[in-house]
Amino acid sequence: MSRESDDLADLVKTEAPEAEEDLEDLALGEDYALNPEYVPMVADALDRGDTERLRELLGALHPADIADLMGFLSWEDREELVPHLDPEALPEILSELDTDIREEVLEHVPSATLARALGEMDSDDAADVVDDLEEDKRAQVLAAMPEVERAAIESSLGYEDETAGRLMQREVVAAPQFWTVGQAIDHLRRESDELPELFFDIYVVDPAYKPVGAAPVSHLLRSRRDVPLAQIMEPVTEIPVDMDQEEVAYIFNKYHLISAPVVEPGGRLVGQITVDDIVGVIQDETEEDILALAGVSDAGRDADILGIVRSRLPWLVINLITEAIAVTVIGPFQDMVSKIVALVMLMPIVSSLGGNAGTQALTVAVRAIASRELSPANAYRVILRELAVGMFNGVAMGSLLGLGSWFLWHDPKLSLVVGLAIIANFFVAALGGILAPIMLDRFGRDPAVSSSVVVTFMTDFFGFLALLGIAALILL
Amino acid sequence: MSRESDDLADLVKTEAPEAEEDLEDLALGEDYALNPEYVPMVADALDRGDTERLRELLGALHPADIADLMGFLSWEDREELVPHLDPEALPEILSELDTDIREEVLEHVPSATLARALGEMDSDDAADVVDDLEEDKRAQVLAAMPEVERAAIESSLGYEDETAGRLMQREVVAAPQFWTVGQAIDHLRRESDELPELFFDIYVVDPAYKPVGAAPVSHLLRSRRDVPLAQIMEPVTEIPVDMDQEEVAYIFNKYHLISAPVVEPGGRLVGQITVDDIVGVIQDETEEDILALAGVSDAGRDADILGIVRSRLPWLVINLITEAIAVTVIGPFQDMVSKIVALVMLMPIVSSLGGNAGTQALTVAVRAIASRELSPANAYRVILRELAVGMFNGVAMGSLLGLGSWFLWHDPKLSLVVGLAIIANFFVAALGGILAPIMLDRFGRDPAVSSSVVVTFMTDFFGFLALLGIAALILL
Repeated sequence: MSRESDDLADLVKTEAPEAEEDLEDLALGEDYALNPEYVPMVADALDRGDTERLRELLGALHPADIADLMGFLSWEDREELVPHLDPEALPEILSELDTDIREEVLEHVPSATLARALGEMDSDDAADVVDDLEEDKRAQVLAAMPEVERAAIESSLGYEDETAGRLMQREVVAAPQFWTVGQAIDHLRRESDELPELFFDIYVVDPAYKPVGAAPVSHLLRSRRDVPLAQIMEPVTEIPVDMDQEEVAYIFNKYHLISAPVVEPGGRLVGQITVDDIVGVIQDETEEDILALAGVSDAGRDADILGIVRSRLPWLVINLITEAIAVTVIGPFQDMVSKIVALVMLMPIVSSLGGNAGTQALTVAVRAIASRELSPANAYRVILRELAVGMFNGVAMGSLLGLGSWFLWHDPKLSLVVGLAIIANFFVAALGGILAPIMLDRFGRDPAVSSSVVVTFMTDFFGFLALLGIAALILL
Repeated sequence: MSRESDDLADLVKTEAPEAEEDLEDLALGEDYALNPEYVPMVADALDRGDTERLRELLGALHPADIADLMGFLSWEDREELVPHLDPEALPEILSELDTDIREEVLEHVPSATLARALGEMDSDDAADVVDDLEEDKRAQVLAAMPEVERAAIESSLGYEDETAGRLMQREVVAAPQFWTVGQAIDHLRRESDELPELFFDIYVVDPAYKPVGAAPVSHLLRSRRDVPLAQIMEPVTEIPVDMDQEEVAYIFNKYHLISAPVVEPGGRLVGQITVDDIVGVIQDETEEDILALAGVSDAGRDADILGIVRSRLPWLVINLITEAIAVTVIGPFQDMVSKIVALVMLMPIVSSLGGNAGTQALTVAVRAIASRELSPANAYRVILRELAVGMFNGVAMGSLLGLGSWFLWHDPKLSLVVGLAIIANFFVAALGGILAPIMLDRFGRDPAVSSSVVVTFMTDFFGFLALLGIAALILL
């Protein structure tokens, strides 16, 4: 930026000084999303090295919004911004950052600052951050942390990624069965400093530290001091420490849980999972499904071009291979096609309509499997229903296309050919669309990942085959 | 079922009597989903009219699992099951049922029973149920309810569907600013019966009943009795009563909220939204996106064939129209195609690869817009990145297909044609894939709903045009 525009910027600033309150209004749009205009304001302050202005701009933002802001900045600006971040807000900002951006940011945070920030975080969030550190730095940071917190992080990292063990925080509030409400409240007041920042249930444990129930804090608050915990506690749904996070999310959603105790194989309480962690999991898991259905893997918010290419090219190659196989079916009919050129225009329509019908069926099936609405208990009924829908839609669309063809070519035989081809291909689409996800799931594969490839191949292959085969029978 | 097999069933039952505990183990699989074998056991008991057995089977299930079970039963069995449902569990079962199944079930629940069940439910859940009732029955049921509860439901139904007003429950715990922790706890103990079943925050309000902060119950529990609420309260994020539920979910997710106060336009506290309601919203909204991307609307879990046809046929018709327009581009090249039949096999490959590349780009863009990661602040950068990725993938796939063609037809010119066509179509795919969602969003349309149609049309149309046009230039 030139000296002149700098002066201009200063002038504008002097004329209309923004109080901190105004900045807060400016920062977020009506939908609470970061205002797009705020990003160049920060970038500009960074360019000018205006520390004072930066402090104001960042001060008006919630840590979650600062993390969001960093996602919109170029990586040069982001790197420059790191030293200006408030150490108080750092733990929350780090928890909120996307993995790929976090990895980059962490390189520019001094180990000592990082060790302090990690100490402020819940053990699950801290473990996620440590997981993103390069090996050298990880050793340095862990060495700079107090023994207890280091142990919590290391034990958290000992569990496999995407399991309950990684998702849980080790900080829980537990009380013995024989305590009363009053004893529990006195204990909480005494141990205030040791407690998790927020908690929703007090787990009632037996002498072997196995959870036997949970007393919601709101029940604790409304009960008289002499009521025993055993009287106000409710049954708990225990989460095994090695359970997959997708299953944990299913359970939370099904039973509307706010928090749940996590137990070791022996049944001992080792931590808790709270619903705010689950919201993230549900989003990640459905996100994965959406991307998988479109044949693309998650490259991360700020991936470079090569990273994105890597996330897409493999699927395109598979698509090329299946499509190349599908078109071989055209080979034997080449002579006929060169004579009846209308077929060239009808082929893409038959395969495309079939592909769409198949995609509709498979998407519904993939979602029904994910939400456990499709199981062996109703599979037979759902399959029959899909086939009926396929036949119905096939007859409807086949008639429509047959009619359209008749207007264009006035050849009733050709209309019959294309109508029958559509019906046949819709039957294949329905069959593939419902069976591919069910079979993939039965064999323990993720139905979202490869159903599309299978079904599109089927509808292309059989679409061409049906159109050209029926044409050969009727038209030649 | 014949009399003989009835006897056999009794015999088997006598030989291996199942304790209630065994049934509970049998009911749910390891993943906490309803065991598929449990469904025919219930259907069987219904067929035999074995009330005792039904009571046992249902008694082993959580209300959420009974709702789940009903989704797997045929509608005849479901209708028969309704009178056997425990009135105690009815409120929760009704809250959990899918809308289409619930509408059907509600017809078979007597108005008086229903009125009692609604009284037990949070006002948001009760309003949802009443919304599903037919007009006659709705009037009957509401008339049978106590004044206060009826008013709460009617006022909830006064807000538009999918807004904060419909999502919120009217039951909140509020306390004046000048209260201490001790006063708040005493109040809670005294008013225990009037309080919501579960609550996570006490909203601190000013004399005009505007929320000025929230005291998390866990903070209340750990503080001394003489501490003023104003000292332990935290800032709140107020939700306007008319905010769209998708935005509410975004805010909850971004700031990791557990509950938030809902306010009228004047700022007065009218209710609260808790995170467990949000989990459902997030799932519904991403579900909508997944289905929209596949060109199918939600027909409901137990839709009949006609319902499903209605949810899919419109998209197929649109697909037919766009595809019919796309193939018109082939018309002028018919002579060339009938001479060079290799083009017939290459056409579907070029259009299909382009379609896939476009779908990848648009799916990523649609998700980025939904999660507010793509905004005017970085749109320019993201568009450039997509175009670069498109060119890169185009060159890679064009080379691959050119090479493959050469092996098959040994015609270097043909390989050049198909390679260039792929590159051109990948450019179009990238452009459409990123611009269609951005433009649709800019004009206030849901980018998930029609991006696919636009992009597939573009890649089909330009795919044919590029292949045949370049062929006409180079090969003729």
